[in-house]
Amino acid sequence: MKKYGAEFIGTFWLVLGGCGSAVISAAYPDVGIGHLGVALAFGLTVLTMAFAIGHISGCHLNPAVSIGLWAGGRFEAKELGPYIISQVLGAILAGGVLYVIASGNAGFVVSGGFASNGYGEHSPDKYSMTAALICEIVMTMMFLVIILGSTDKRAPAGLAPIAIGLGLTLIHLISIPVTNTSVNPARSTGVALFAGGWAISQLWLFWVAPIIGGVLGAVVYRFIGSEDK
Amino acid sequence: MKKYGAEFIGTFWLVLGGCGSAVISAAYPDVGIGHLGVALAFGLTVLTMAFAIGHISGCHLNPAVSIGLWAGGRFEAKELGPYIISQVLGAILAGGVLYVIASGNAGFVVSGGFASNGYGEHSPDKYSMTAALICEIVMTMMFLVIILGSTDKRAPAGLAPIAIGLGLTLIHLISIPVTNTSVNPARSTGVALFAGGWAISQLWLFWVAPIIGGVLGAVVYRFIGSEDK
Amino acid sequence: MKKYGAEFIGTFWLVLGGCGSAVISAAYPDVGIGHLGVALAFGLTVLTMAFAIGHISGCHLNPAVSIGLWAGGRFEAKELGPYIISQVLGAILAGGVLYVIASGNAGFVVSGGFASNGYGEHSPDKYSMTAALICEIVMTMMFLVIILGSTDKRAPAGLAPIAIGLGLTLIHLISIPVTNTSVNPARSTGVALFAGGWAISQLWLFWVAPIIGGVLGAVVYRFIGSEDK
Amino acid sequence: MKKYGAEFIGTFWLVLGGCGSAVISAAYPDVGIGHLGVALAFGLTVLTMAFAIGHISGCHLNPAVSIGLWAGGRFEAKELGPYIISQVLGAILAGGVLYVIASGNAGFVVSGGFASNGYGEHSPDKYSMTAALICEIVMTMMFLVIILGSTDKRAPAGLAPIAIGLGLTLIHLISIPVTNTSVNPARSTGVALFAGGWAISQLWLFWVAPIIGGVLGAVVYRFIGSEDK
Repeated sequence: MKKYGAEFIGTFWLVLGGCGSAVISAAYPDVGIGHLGVALAFGLTVLTMAFAIGHISGCHLNPAVSIGLWAGGRFEAKELGPYIISQVLGAILAGGVLYVIASGNAGFVVSGGFASNGYGEHSPDKYSMTAALICEIVMTMMFLVIILGSTDKRAPAGLAPIAIGLGLTLIHLISIPVTNTSVNPARSTGVALFAGGWAISQLWLFWVAPIIGGVLGAVVYRFIGSEDK
Repeated sequence: MKKYGAEFIGTFWLVLGGCGSAVISAAYPDVGIGHLGVALAFGLTVLTMAFAIGHISGCHLNPAVSIGLWAGGRFEAKELGPYIISQVLGAILAGGVLYVIASGNAGFVVSGGFASNGYGEHSPDKYSMTAALICEIVMTMMFLVIILGSTDKRAPAGLAPIAIGLGLTLIHLISIPVTNTSVNPARSTGVALFAGGWAISQLWLFWVAPIIGGVLGAVVYRFIGSEDK
Repeated sequence: MKKYGAEFIGTFWLVLGGCGSAVISAAYPDVGIGHLGVALAFGLTVLTMAFAIGHISGCHLNPAVSIGLWAGGRFEAKELGPYIISQVLGAILAGGVLYVIASGNAGFVVSGGFASNGYGEHSPDKYSMTAALICEIVMTMMFLVIILGSTDKRAPAGLAPIAIGLGLTLIHLISIPVTNTSVNPARSTGVALFAGGWAISQLWLFWVAPIIGGVLGAVVYRFIGSEDK
Repeated sequence: MKKYGAEFIGTFWLVLGGCGSAVISAAYPDVGIGHLGVALAFGLTVLTMAFAIGHISGCHLNPAVSIGLWAGGRFEAKELGPYIISQVLGAILAGGVLYVIASGNAGFVVSGGFASNGYGEHSPDKYSMTAALICEIVMTMMFLVIILGSTDKRAPAGLAPIAIGLGLTLIHLISIPVTNTSVNPARSTGVALFAGGWAISQLWLFWVAPIIGGVLGAVVYRFIGSEDK
């Protein structure tokens, strides 16, 4: 049970920290943190949790990561269900807490998107659905390569949290304008439920693409990373 | 005595560096560091001190951290008093030194807030008292989860300063617009004494909320992090 | 074969992440990541890959690095050909994928430069060809000093990915306005092929200067870093 | 001789990277790196060199650091002369190389300050001489506390380059508006010689204050950090 609690709390933090920085801090006049700050925030949620709960649950915080690790032979199929449920519930709690905090600001309007992921007319910079699909697949694929590689027993011990956390920062630096960056179905779900409308109707892409990408990442790392016999 | 000196110096650095970057550098025209720079500065005060004095005092620098560590069974009750007094005195010295430096600028007006924490009309983005309370409690709670988890003997050795320091950066990335971010009663006190007025009258919240959050963080980590017997 | 695959994937990521952040995210209105974000992105591609594939191929991702390591006695001449080919092919694939994603944005015009490197009238800030040559040579020279030094067996084990990745970030912080920063012939080639025109005709400098710099870096480190007998 | 060469190259990189980012990249229109980018650049010069040459010379790169380490009993008096001379010469070479690169830009005017340190009317934000003195002394004092603490044999092994490098970033985040941040007489000298005029006549402060601060840092760390017998 402890590992499910850890995934719940960790994903809660990922969504509260990442989406919270976007909703609360990104566009503050003159001194706001911008996309760079949001990218750093998302990455640091994973970096901090990987150090704090990595030894409890492995710190996936993301259904696409759990599935990718399963595809890479690092995670048992029977754990997929409980992990993914814990992650989605943690994300939803974060959406709720963020909603309560953000509502304490007179200027808050949830119809502004609430940090939801989108494509086409709901892409931050109006990227097409095809661009969004390719981008989310490739970004999640490379995220899994980073995760599988940096936790390989031949990699430097103990430093994977830095590689993986800053890897998520990097992914956001590249792709916020395309889809607001998901690579994580739980993160997308946690805020879409509160944003409603288009965020719900576009949510399918942010389950499909990251999961495809996660599996592809496992395939790529199997090709380049497996040890010669 | 050395550990109290270390807490004094470390908290001095936290307040001078964090609040100093906010007062001196955040809003410099065109090339100012903004909230992102202030968030980084606060985190780096803790990161640098955790490497520099962690082996002397544990580097708490924060009454809510000392109390949270006590609640988590990692710190002795009889040390709480001297630690908290050292922290508050270091913070006040930092407020004084910052006041002297800032006064060397012709445009300085302490009534600008002097990096104090506030809520309601004194919240940077006018968040309500309720939002401020919830935000400070949740942020400090997660700060303690990060601290307790990354210093767990099962976590990678020696890297907790990175997790904890960048965790404080993350907390600021999320919440500066809400309360100017405290999660640390000593930090709030050190500048409020010089700002006076509303900063003093709102100071209670920045003792109450971080301490509640610190204790809650210990409870959460006890639930997810304690080892199975 | 695995190491060539790793260089291919790693250089793909370097170009997709670094040039992608420049093309997609740098100039987004108000909250764009700017040159600071692009500098961070380039560095994090190397940091993440060095942790993920360093144990497979050494993670060069750059013909000038491979040649510099050969000049420094750390890499075999017979591997230079396959490594450089793998790097350039990975970079070209990244240029193609980035082209497809960027084309999904209605406002995209490849004639904007597509993150290509240039000098004179194609330098971001109109630096002369001489300044560009000197800058690229010196930056690559110091990049190799960082690589050779941080992977020296006397340096702290396992941390070279941080030094090298953030070293590339630093190089971009200094020199984006001069040449858009190359220090990597594969990176320059991968986007120039899609940008065409001046980017192709100026490409020679971004092969010549980084290679000279890489060899000079090996010479410098041999002078200061070789162990006394 | 190798260690003097290492100090020469390392200080060359500190000044080229730190002052170069300020001169070339800080104020680039719209996407410039600002003071935050310059702060990161200065810190990363030290972080990268500490990993690359720390095992050769200890990577001081700064007369105030060498003197502070001597005051702290970590460095021999007879080495002070050669180290400081190597540092100043490396800084001057960097000033020269930066001058040549910057001159390749049509808009370059050295009279703009060339990243020199100053106070009073030459402080970036017009801070008084007294504020400048106090600020440089306190910043250098805390820099030495970080250095002495993070290289203490009780601190985590191998990670001091991160603490020290990011400590210099933090110092710049706080104090660029006050003096353009020195805490390093070699860095100040290397650019003042090319800027001339007021930069030369104010140079005394950036030798005196950092050296006082360095010695005070050694005193502070002796008080809090020495092991009980």
